[in-house]
Amino acid sequence: MKTKKLVFLMLWLALIFLTAPVGVSATEQHEVGHADPIAPVLYGLIVILLAAKLGGEVFERFKQPSVLGELIFGVLLGNLALANINFFDFLRTDDFIDIFARVGVIILLFEVGLESDLKEMKQVGIPSLLVAIAGVIAPLILGYMVSRWFLPAAGTNTHLFIGATLCATSVGITARVFKDLGKLGIPEARIVLGAAVIDDVLGLIILAIISGIINTGSIGLLSISWVTLKAILFLVLAIGIGTYSASTIGKYAAMMQVKGVKTIVALIFAFVLSYLADSVGLSTIVGAFAAGLILEEGHFENFRGDLEVRELIKPISYFLVPIFFVLIGIQVRLETFADVSVLGIAAGLTLAAIVGKQVCGLTVKKEYNRFLIGLAMIPRGEVGLIFASIGKVLGVLSEAVFSAIVIMVIVTTLVTPPVLKFSLKEK
Amino acid sequence: MKTKKLVFLMLWLALIFLTAPVGVSATEQHEVGHADPIAPVLYGLIVILLAAKLGGEVFERFKQPSVLGELIFGVLLGNLALANINFFDFLRTDDFIDIFARVGVIILLFEVGLESDLKEMKQVGIPSLLVAIAGVIAPLILGYMVSRWFLPAAGTNTHLFIGATLCATSVGITARVFKDLGKLGIPEARIVLGAAVIDDVLGLIILAIISGIINTGSIGLLSISWVTLKAILFLVLAIGIGTYSASTIGKYAAMMQVKGVKTIVALIFAFVLSYLADSVGLSTIVGAFAAGLILEEGHFENFRGDLEVRELIKPISYFLVPIFFVLIGIQVRLETFADVSVLGIAAGLTLAAIVGKQVCGLTVKKEYNRFLIGLAMIPRGEVGLIFASIGKVLGVLSEAVFSAIVIMVIVTTLVTPPVLKFSLKEK
Repeated sequence: MKTKKLVFLMLWLALIFLTAPVGVSATEQHEVGHADPIAPVLYGLIVILLAAKLGGEVFERFKQPSVLGELIFGVLLGNLALANINFFDFLRTDDFIDIFARVGVIILLFEVGLESDLKEMKQVGIPSLLVAIAGVIAPLILGYMVSRWFLPAAGTNTHLFIGATLCATSVGITARVFKDLGKLGIPEARIVLGAAVIDDVLGLIILAIISGIINTGSIGLLSISWVTLKAILFLVLAIGIGTYSASTIGKYAAMMQVKGVKTIVALIFAFVLSYLADSVGLSTIVGAFAAGLILEEGHFENFRGDLEVRELIKPISYFLVPIFFVLIGIQVRLETFADVSVLGIAAGLTLAAIVGKQVCGLTVKKEYNRFLIGLAMIPRGEVGLIFASIGKVLGVLSEAVFSAIVIMVIVTTLVTPPVLKFSLKEK
Repeated sequence: MKTKKLVFLMLWLALIFLTAPVGVSATEQHEVGHADPIAPVLYGLIVILLAAKLGGEVFERFKQPSVLGELIFGVLLGNLALANINFFDFLRTDDFIDIFARVGVIILLFEVGLESDLKEMKQVGIPSLLVAIAGVIAPLILGYMVSRWFLPAAGTNTHLFIGATLCATSVGITARVFKDLGKLGIPEARIVLGAAVIDDVLGLIILAIISGIINTGSIGLLSISWVTLKAILFLVLAIGIGTYSASTIGKYAAMMQVKGVKTIVALIFAFVLSYLADSVGLSTIVGAFAAGLILEEGHFENFRGDLEVRELIKPISYFLVPIFFVLIGIQVRLETFADVSVLGIAAGLTLAAIVGKQVCGLTVKKEYNRFLIGLAMIPRGEVGLIFASIGKVLGVLSEAVFSAIVIMVIVTTLVTPPVLKFSLKEK
């Protein structure tokens, strides 16, 4: 009985592999116009979603965050070519899969924004702000130094960008560990979570500044001030006009009778702000995050019986977000590690990431567990990876450095939960 | 106060229009690599989703199906160039928007499959089957004749394909009218709804046969038999292996702890069957429909507290399905109607579509309201449009004929609700 089931599963898998469009990218097929252009895209989506869920499951079983599983299964998929398996090579360069991943990141940052709350951020107040600022500046400087040490030939832009990828703490992973241990209520947890959210905002501003510097080519005080001003102006304007418009739009939308209005209004809101962010020279994700911050459930209170926005967005997020993380993994080239110096960079960056966040603890009063705060700020996650992928597209991060950054994210994320658990139990 | 709100809305719209990437398709921008390649895609998605919801809303207010609003607002968008407004021209040829629309159709047919029930189809039995068969054969022959009359220069393939677009009744629109009038329980309603579902299956088989003939180029008895056999074999095998695998997969998936498993398993199921259908030379939508038929909620009964599959798919469907219908509208070229013969074809096809379905009533016993059954079968909807878009890609339907078919779908759908209401009240 059991073997019969296995045979069926094998049959399915065999069918999928046999019919793979080997070596032909979706883009190429689309141009040749031979088969339905959707076929290779479907193939890519199937493989990526399978890898994401299997990888996520394996890591969940070992009490690790599922995003790590998506990343690592992506690395495996992307490097099967080293074992002469070439079915999945086209995923690395396929334009359509890439666009799905990009929409995925926008949805992800929109969700992060939805979960962050402007009012709550004001309440955690000064200690969170200090922890966040220290936790952004120290890794930025350390990362810059590590980059200069290992890559003396690279330009200032590269050093700055590498530093920036070390800035943002992953709220999700830290929150998860505190929650699993039932310690979400302790003051250290609240300070760290507040700081992690502020971190995201600071990180996005730093990304905007550095991207601006790279695009204009100059690094003068004037251009830095201009980009900073633009980023802050965009966030302020977007949140200002947005908050006002959101309640009006919500009121009108609630009067509409057509199905799916709530979902679509939320999506359009996220897309419009992402698009505007791009138009003023910022990253789309800055806009998506702002859209999430603005859209509070209150704006849709007149909707009858519909689910909350974050519930409605969830299936879309389940579909598109893992594509981004698996694709990041796929783009890691393990052969770059044949060069020992790349391993050195990875080690250096990981060290900078860990040490850099220990400064955080020093900014709070002695009555708090300073060591715990420093540890809790270690994990880098989504935002670091997003920065890395943007840096690769901008041309400031090489294949090797990109791979090293992904390794840094994986290690810092893997290390935090056990260390944090140990430290919490000690206390 | 009211003007202030209007000013805000205008400001938003102005911002969107001002920042439009005029005349540059997403594909081109992607290749040039100037800005983030996602920007023009976002722009396209925003415009299309806005048009879909506004169009849908206007038609809902007039008690018309919202899909008509999506189509007609699409036609407006696509033909603004006639008024020298060129912001939206790139949507007609953009590869990325096209791929989103194609995933949208797959999701749509998956949903139609989910809502159809193999057991229910068996229960309505013989009368529904007869109505369905008559309602497929008569319009096919009439459509073929109309095509030969108006397009004497076109090949047999074109005549056959035009005939095929007239076959499938739109379940949704008919069900809606019966439901609105509280008449879903009368025997005529049950017969018609059963017939409409069988129609879909017959239509998909005919599509498979005709596409097969076009691909192989020959129209011999042998090739027709082979394609028919392949289509039936695929459906039988897919439903057979699928039903068995689905319960096994459901059982294993229910044991997984990672988030979003139910959504992703359903999507992978739909994508795999769509991909396999394409691999054996059928249309992807045949596979998507089969996947929906197979995936019954029972297979996922061990999932704890998750929503039903059709609820989980809804937000994804809200997002992607309207893109397909708006894009169909965008591709209608109003200038083709400057040629009076195109208006003739549109009128001829509409007449064939209406008259062809009147044969349906004759196949049932006299005790039923035969006239009512014939009227209820008139509306063509999603499936006709999908066939038209496939025919355009295969090169058997010209721009002009494509536009004529869309007009036929719009007219038959517009005409049915009032006529049906009148006839139901008469009785």
